[in-house]
This record gives sequence, structure tokens and C-alpha cells, in this order.
Amino acid sequence: MYKSEFRKPDGRALTLYGVKPVELAGEVPSPSPEPVEARPVLRWHPVRGEWVMYAAHRLNRTFMPPPEYNPLAPTRDPHNPTELPAGRYDMAVFDNRFPSLVLDAPAPEPVPGVQGRGGVGKCEVVVFSQDPQGTLGGLPPEQVRLLLDVWADRTGVLGADPRIHSVLPFENRGVEVGVTLHHPHGQIYAYDHIPPVQARALETMRAYRQEHGRPWLEDFVRGERAAKLRIVRDHGAALSVVPPFARYTYETWVLPTRPAAFLHELSEAERDALAAALKDALLRLDALFGVRMPYLLTVQQAPVDGAAYPEWPLRVEIFPYLRAPGRMKYLAGTEQGAGEFANDKLPEAAAQELRSLNPQEVSP
Amino acid sequence: MYKSEFRKPDGRALTLYGVKPVELAGEVPSPSPEPVEARPVLRWHPVRGEWVMYAAHRLNRTFMPPPEYNPLAPTRDPHNPTELPAGRYDMAVFDNRFPSLVLDAPAPEPVPGVQGRGGVGKCEVVVFSQDPQGTLGGLPPEQVRLLLDVWADRTGVLGADPRIHSVLPFENRGVEVGVTLHHPHGQIYAYDHIPPVQARALETMRAYRQEHGRPWLEDFVRGERAAKLRIVRDHGAALSVVPPFARYTYETWVLPTRPAAFLHELSEAERDALAAALKDALLRLDALFGVRMPYLLTVQQAPVDGAAYPEWPLRVEIFPYLRAPGRMKYLAGTEQGAGEFANDKLPEAAAQELRSLNPQEVSP
Repeated sequence: MYKSEFRKPDGRALTLYGVKPVELAGEVPSPSPEPVEARPVLRWHPVRGEWVMYAAHRLNRTFMPPPEYNPLAPTRDPHNPTELPAGRYDMAVFDNRFPSLVLDAPAPEPVPGVQGRGGVGKCEVVVFSQDPQGTLGGLPPEQVRLLLDVWADRTGVLGADPRIHSVLPFENRGVEVGVTLHHPHGQIYAYDHIPPVQARALETMRAYRQEHGRPWLEDFVRGERAAKLRIVRDHGAALSVVPPFARYTYETWVLPTRPAAFLHELSEAERDALAAALKDALLRLDALFGVRMPYLLTVQQAPVDGAAYPEWPLRVEIFPYLRAPGRMKYLAGTEQGAGEFANDKLPEAAAQELRSLNPQEVSP
Repeated sequence: MYKSEFRKPDGRALTLYGVKPVELAGEVPSPSPEPVEARPVLRWHPVRGEWVMYAAHRLNRTFMPPPEYNPLAPTRDPHNPTELPAGRYDMAVFDNRFPSLVLDAPAPEPVPGVQGRGGVGKCEVVVFSQDPQGTLGGLPPEQVRLLLDVWADRTGVLGADPRIHSVLPFENRGVEVGVTLHHPHGQIYAYDHIPPVQARALETMRAYRQEHGRPWLEDFVRGERAAKLRIVRDHGAALSVVPPFARYTYETWVLPTRPAAFLHELSEAERDALAAALKDALLRLDALFGVRMPYLLTVQQAPVDGAAYPEWPLRVEIFPYLRAPGRMKYLAGTEQGAGEFANDKLPEAAAQELRSLNPQEVSP
């Protein structure tokens, strides 16, 4: 992996990554020379016991720009700058122009009745390709593999800041779920605390290890391989599986077959297997209904707070939003009001469908 | 409140409620005479530490029927039966024909790698009106008031079963969030355990009371009345407020101004005030952008497991899904992957907008 770091005219950081050495063919651009003016705040939700992020400057963020303007494409005309320069690179990471969290967030003015503080953290955009038409699953294998290295690198860079305790790389895909830019890209949120989903997983995984004397993931992988019911494809050092407790109909987890806290802990061979499993899983979801499946993909790593998490089950969780052709899964009363999901199909049946498919790209 | 109980031809229960005595004008119908064949199961999610419901029979549930068939309208032609009879009544409650949970759910066949059990509970449909075009907020005040009594009655009826530990009445509204029947109606889920959102609130509210010596709600109401920043309308014994920690842009809580575990604990006067506050809040959300606001409404009561919950903050939580005209809030990476919400607007600004409106009905 090659990596070069730059500074945009508005002060934001840009990092270019490539399988070959990075070469610029123009200036590093920014859509606007104005520095980002973000003063995000966090407020405490006393009933749910969690933080809520407020970023009032985000309401006017880019929304469905016309096709002739793609801020994630390389800049062709310096008078019409995008977020990225022309040149030789495969992926790019830059500070989000509309961040929900910033490292130097100031303490907000006190507001009566509010338990608030500055929204300290970082929001990055990860551009997966120079090709605006592509998809993550459709990228060449070496580029999917590169993305694992990029996610690992960002986790390390962000986690090196003592203010950052948790890093979440993710991809939202699909106009059905409000994605405003179709150029293949993801995001990274870095938090100055451990957010609720991660905190809960730490609790459950520690309790499992205390009770059983070994990490949950070991038993899970052994059990899934023995059951042969829900593994979509086994790549040896990594596999894809519809977990027996899937909340989304075609929910797919892509994971190394040993416990790991971070992507950067994995060997080259393990990352190769994980990349192959990820590409295969994403193409199967597209092939399932013959449409580009809208989904949320998250990379679930352990906290970057310096503690050791030997029981952590590193995994890529993919939540596909279609539960049948043309039928979206919506989070309704039981999911949002009670926190308990209803799923219309047993994971064994969903896995059987995904296994039987020929993984392939589909047109937009 | 008047109430009459019936049995449908397929064996499901039907209860009719009215502000006047209920009178049938025909047989009690069912769209099909076939008994419901539901074998829902619960599976344990070991990483999130929560149950997931599987109801494979639900995948083929009614989806966008043609306008001439409305299963929630009173039956006009006995050869074309709906869920409800003709007659004099204002609201109806019946067992969901596609339940995610049933009281007599059998233990499922063991599946390798699965920690599962029968999906014990109950799912009911609540029809708010005989008028298929209406909305909850647009109902006459006495009918909104009746709904509080109906919710209170159902909570009591369901909670009287020793298998039921938690009851969640809710309304999903809006084709934008997958609602398939436009006739004004809600649902009730009754669980045989305390689901995650309620469990978390029990923890936080108990901890608050232990630390401060009084229920959180007392401090909250006092603080909001003093701050005068986020109360949408104060009805004395009840009020509506954009909570200072709102996760949705126009999130509105409608609540009695003293702690209460259940609707049935409230006095007649308190229920009058709560109904007035609820109607007013819903009409403001419709008036906000001049469209029927898609939303999730949940009634957050304490567990019905027989324990006392003196610190419980009874409330109706309304999550409006539009964050701006034509712009939906989608739950993306941070919300689903981390459990932490990003909101584009401060609650003080949202409350100011809602306060300035003239609450009114809007056409569909």
C-alpha cells in the first residue's frame, strides 16, 4: 500500500492511497476555499443513557447534485474543483466538509436544561475508486483488499489521537436509504467515547468468555462450520455467514475465523481471505434480486482506547435493506420503540438462497 | 368507555370500544375462516444481548391492497368480509392475523447453532376510527381521549396474563416508512420479557433516582418549565416538548407532568390533558411542512411484570421522519452501527418552529 498525505486549500486533510505509488496530476482541490465552520455538540440522553450528536451546519449539506457535478470524482477543470485531484491513486480519504464531530470542537454555550459538551471526534469520507459508476463489490480483488488496508490505516491514524476511543468505518449504499452521492464511497466516524452498540458487545463478549473460558467467536465459527446451515462461503481464514440471530433478512457477516480486535492485527493471508469473502458476499447480495442491494456495511472493531480486547469478534456486518424484491425493511414500532427486531425469514433459508447464487455485478 | 368482546370465525379475539354503548349491525367477520397458523420463534443475539423475533408466515402479509379492499373498514358485504363488523363503535382491537408473537407459541425444533425458543407474546391491531381517511391527530378530542382509555385497557388485559411482561402500543404512519394500510390504526406488541429499550430506561431511571433522591421526570418537567425553550405546549397536567436530547429533528414527547408507570394510573383530568396535548402535538407536526408527517409513535409504559416502578416517566414518544421538507431522516452508519444519533437541528430551534404553528389537519 502506498500513501501520501496532503492539505486542502480549506485546511482539511486529504490522504491518497494506491496499490502503486501515488502521483498527483494537478493541485489538491476543495469545492470551496472557506474553512469548515463546525461547532458540533454532544448532549446526554438521560433515559436511553447515550450521547446524541448535534451538527446544525449539516442541514444544508450537498443533496442530490446534478449528474454533471460529482464532488468525489477527480477534478478535471480547476475552475470547477471537486474534493479530489487528478492523478494516480486508487482510494482517497478526506475530512468530511459537513462533520458531525470535530477534534477541536469547542465547549458549547450552556443551555438551560441541557447536559452538553463539545462534539469531539472526527468524520472522514473514504472514496473507494476513481470510477463514479462502480460498486465496492465490483472493484478488482486487489482494490477490495486495499480497502481493508485503508480502513486499518485510518483506524490506526485516528486511534493514535488520545482523544479518540472508537472508530467506525461504514458504507451506506442506496438512494432508498438517503444516499446523496452515488460515487462509491464510505465514511468513518471516530468517537471520543465508546458508543452504545460497541459498549454492549464488550459486555456480552466479556461475559461469554468468563463463562465459557474462550472467546465467543471460536465457538461460533466451530458451530457454523459443523452446522453447515448458514455459512454462505468459507474462505478458510475468513468466511461469510448469515448469523443464526440475523435481524435483517439477508444480514451477512464477513469475518476472520479467529478473534481479532482490529484489521491491522490480521496477517496478509487473513486480509486476502477477508477481502475475497467481502467481495463475494456483496456480489451475492446484488445478484439476489438482480438489483444493487441497498445496504449498510459497518466494520466492527474493538475500542482504540489502548486496552486489550482478546475476546473481540472483528467482523464486517452487512445489513441489506430489501427483505424481498421491491420490499424494504423499515424499522418500526418494535425495532425502534422496544429495540427488538422482527425478521420474516429464518437465517437458514436466507443463507441457502445466497449460497445458490452466482455472485455477479448488476447494472445500476 | 364502553367495551364488548367477540370471537372471529377464525378464532381470533375482537374487542370493540365506544364512547356510546357498542351495537353490532352484522356478523363478526374475518377476511378468511382459516385459523391463524403462526409458529413464531425467538433467537438470542449473543453479541447484542437481545432477542430477535422470527415469523416466517409474515412475509406474505397484506401489501398495498387495491383501494376497494380495506380490511380495517367495517364489512359492508358479507361475501367480501373485512376484519371488522358494521355497527356502532369508535375503535376496535383484534389479534393480528400475521403475528410476530403468539401466546401459545410452541417450542421450535432445535436447530444446530441456535439458541431459540417459542415466540411467546401477543400482537394486536388497534383501529382508531371507522373513517378510512382520518388521522389520529384529526380525530375528535373525545376520540383521542378514548384511545388513551383503549391503550390503558389493552395494557391491563395483556398484562393480566402472567406470561406477558411488557406492552408496547405504537403507531407507524406514512407510506414513506412502509405502512401498507392507510386506514388510521396502530398496533400493540406484548412481550414475555423486558425488551432492550425498556430495560435500559429502567436502569437509567433507577440510577437517577438513587443519585438525586427523586424521579428524573420531576426534575425534567421543572427544568423545561423554567427554561421555556423546548415546551411546545403546556396543558397543565400534561405537556408536549422537544426533549433537549431529541434524536429526531422534530422529536416530540407528550407526557403527564408527574411520574406514572401506566396510563391507567392517570386521573380522568390527567388523561384529558394528555389527550389534548397529543392531539395538538400531532396536528403541529402535520402543519409543519403542510404534509401528513410520517412518524413512529410509541407509548412508553413500565413493565407489566407486577413490580412497582415509581420512578417511571410515562410518555408518548413521537419520532417524525422528515427532518426538512421532502427530506427523510435515515438511520445510517452511526445510528445503526454505533447506536448514536446525529441530528441536524438543535431542539430549541425545532420547538420554536412547532410552537409558532397553527395546529391543523392537512389533506393526504
